[in-house]
Amino acid sequence: MTLQNKSIVFSQIPKGLPTEEHLPLVSSEISSEAPKGGLLLQTLYVSLDPYMRGCMRDPSIKTYSEPYPLGKPINNFGISRVIDSKASGFKKSDLVISPYGKTVFSLYQSVSADELPFFTPVSDTEGIPLTYYIGILGMPGLTAYHALINIGGPLKSGETILVSAAAGAVGQIVGQLAKLHGLRVVGSVGSDEKVKFVTEELGFDAAWNYNKETDYYAAIDKYIPEGTDIFYDNVGGPLLDAVLLKSKVHGRIIACGAISQYNLQPEERYGCKNLIEIFQRRLTIKGFVILDTIVGDPETVKEVIGSLTKLVKKDADAFLFKEDVTDGIENLTTAFQGLLTGKNQGKSIVKFAD
Amino acid sequence: MTLQNKSIVFSQIPKGLPTEEHLPLVSSEISSEAPKGGLLLQTLYVSLDPYMRGCMRDPSIKTYSEPYPLGKPINNFGISRVIDSKASGFKKSDLVISPYGKTVFSLYQSVSADELPFFTPVSDTEGIPLTYYIGILGMPGLTAYHALINIGGPLKSGETILVSAAAGAVGQIVGQLAKLHGLRVVGSVGSDEKVKFVTEELGFDAAWNYNKETDYYAAIDKYIPEGTDIFYDNVGGPLLDAVLLKSKVHGRIIACGAISQYNLQPEERYGCKNLIEIFQRRLTIKGFVILDTIVGDPETVKEVIGSLTKLVKKDADAFLFKEDVTDGIENLTTAFQGLLTGKNQGKSIVKFAD
Repeated sequence: MTLQNKSIVFSQIPKGLPTEEHLPLVSSEISSEAPKGGLLLQTLYVSLDPYMRGCMRDPSIKTYSEPYPLGKPINNFGISRVIDSKASGFKKSDLVISPYGKTVFSLYQSVSADELPFFTPVSDTEGIPLTYYIGILGMPGLTAYHALINIGGPLKSGETILVSAAAGAVGQIVGQLAKLHGLRVVGSVGSDEKVKFVTEELGFDAAWNYNKETDYYAAIDKYIPEGTDIFYDNVGGPLLDAVLLKSKVHGRIIACGAISQYNLQPEERYGCKNLIEIFQRRLTIKGFVILDTIVGDPETVKEVIGSLTKLVKKDADAFLFKEDVTDGIENLTTAFQGLLTGKNQGKSIVKFAD
Repeated sequence: MTLQNKSIVFSQIPKGLPTEEHLPLVSSEISSEAPKGGLLLQTLYVSLDPYMRGCMRDPSIKTYSEPYPLGKPINNFGISRVIDSKASGFKKSDLVISPYGKTVFSLYQSVSADELPFFTPVSDTEGIPLTYYIGILGMPGLTAYHALINIGGPLKSGETILVSAAAGAVGQIVGQLAKLHGLRVVGSVGSDEKVKFVTEELGFDAAWNYNKETDYYAAIDKYIPEGTDIFYDNVGGPLLDAVLLKSKVHGRIIACGAISQYNLQPEERYGCKNLIEIFQRRLTIKGFVILDTIVGDPETVKEVIGSLTKLVKKDADAFLFKEDVTDGIENLTTAFQGLLTGKNQGKSIVKFAD
C-alpha cells in the first residue's frame, strides 16, 4: 500500500528571495508502512526559520548549517504523529518532535532505524500548545534565552536593550525576558501593527517601525537617547552600523542573525562604516549559533527549556508567544518569503495536518 | 630670566593627514624658574602614538581621549629632566616620566604644583634604555600585554595569531609575547624591510607586505591557510573585513586600533561587508582603550609593567624592541605623518635634547 505524498523540494539555488521555482511542491508516493525498525510519520506542523535561507546554497560553501541537498525535500524543526511504528519506544498516534531539525517538509516521512535518535516523543503536553515545542520551547526559545542570559549576561536592572526583529520568534522572547530582569526594552519592527503588539501586549517600553523611520541614527536618538547597553541583533546591516555609533561605552552586542543580508550576494551586502567604534566605545560583540549548544551542551538545553517551560506554565497571560500559522503545505514558500521580508506576525509555522 | 622655548602647537583641525599648517613649530619665552611648588622641565624624548590623531578633532565630539585645545601645545607621553625644582621629592637633574601623557611638546615645560601628580621620577634605570619608559615599559607595552594576555587570553599553544601593524610599537611586543606562549605568529606590515625585521629578528613565523600583496583575502589564504584563531588589530578597514571571513570558528578579534581609518572623514571610511560572519563563525570581538586601565586599575598596570620589565631585563637579545628615533622638535610633524602612513620602523619617538 502507498500513500500520496507531497513535498517542498529544493530544486534550484536562489540568488535573491526564494520562490516556487526554487522550492516547488512535488507529488510522490510513499509506502504506508514504517521501514524495518523505523517509523512512518505524518507531519503536523513545521517551523520556518530565517537560518533556512542559508541552507539553500552552493554546498561547496561551508557554514554552520548543513546545505540542503538539491533535488531533495527540505527539512527543519517539526511536530509529527506516528502513523506506523516498527521501533521500540514509539507507538501509533504518538506525537514526536525533531530537536535537531530533521522533520522533512513532506506530508509523510519515513524514518529509518538509523534516524530514530533524531526524534523524541512528546509525552506530556500539560496544557502547553503543541506548536510551542517548535517555538518558545524549541530552537527560537533556546536561542533567545541562552544568548540573552548566558552569553549576553549578566543583565543589570536599569540597562537598556535594543532588540531587532522584536516581534519575531526570538525577539518577542528576548524582550519579555529582558523586562523580567528589569531592563528598559526597545524594539525595532517592520510595521505599525507590530509596534502596537510589542509595546501594548509584550510590555516593551518603546518600539519603532523601521519601514517608516528609516534613519536609524535618528530613531535611536529618539527612542534610546541614553544609548544602548545591549543590542540583541537578528537583522544586521544598517541598523547594526547605527548601533555601533550609538552604543554606550562598554556596550555589548549579541550577534544572533542578520536577516537583512541573507538574500544578498556577498558583493551586495551593506558595508558597515562604524567599526572604529568597537574600540572607541570598548564594545564586546559575541556571535553564536545555537546549534553548537544543541549538539554540544545538552545540560544547558535542558536547563533553558526547563526555565522557559516554567515561565510558560506559570501564567500563560503574563508571558506571551505569538504565532503566525499558515495553513497548508502549498502555501509554505509564500510564508517563507513573508518571514524573510518581515511580513509574519510572530513565530512562523506551517500546518500540514490536524 | 627667561629661556627661548619652542612648541608644536595645535593650530587647525586637520581633515586628512596633519601637516605643519595644523601643527606648526612656534617660538615663545618661558621663565627659567620653576613655579611655586612646581617644576621646570626640559623635554628629552616624546612618544608619537596613533591615538594622538584622534585628539586633533572638534572638541564637541566626545571619544575616549581628551581633545587637544586649539592654540595650545600638544602633549603625550614623554621623558624630561628637572632643571629647576620647587617641589619636594624632585631635585635638579632628576629624570621624570608622565604616565598619563602630560608631557607637553615644548623644549621646556613649567609644571604647577597641581600638575605634579601626573609626573613620576625614574629612580633606577638598571641598564634599561631611557626611551623604554615611553615604549615597551610605557603605554604601548601595557597595551600589547594587557590586551593580548588579559583581554584576548587565555592563549593556547598551537593557535594562530595575526597581528596588523606588526612592526609597530604595539605589534612587535604582541608578536613576541605570542611566540613565548607557543602560538604561530603572522604579521601584516607595510614594507619588505619590515617583513624581514619581524620574521628574521622578532621570530614571526610569516609576514606579508600589505602594500605589495593588496588582496588581503589571498594573503590570508597564503600565509594563514588554517584561518586565524586571534586577530590583534591595530589597523581596521579592509584587513579587518577579510579576517572576519577568514577566521576560524570561535575566533577572537582584539580591536586595539584602526589606523587605516583615522585620517578619513566618517563618510569616507571603509564599509565592512562581512559582519554576517560574526555569528556564522561565532566570533568574539572585544574593543578596549588602555586609558581605562591606566586610570582605573593601577594594580594591573603595576603587574603588567613588572612582567615586561622582567622580560626586558632577562635577556635583552631575546626580547627586542625596535625604536625609530627622529632627532629634533622641528622634524616632529613629519615623523607623525610617517607614523600615520606606516613609514616608521618601530616605536616612533622624537628626541628633543640629550
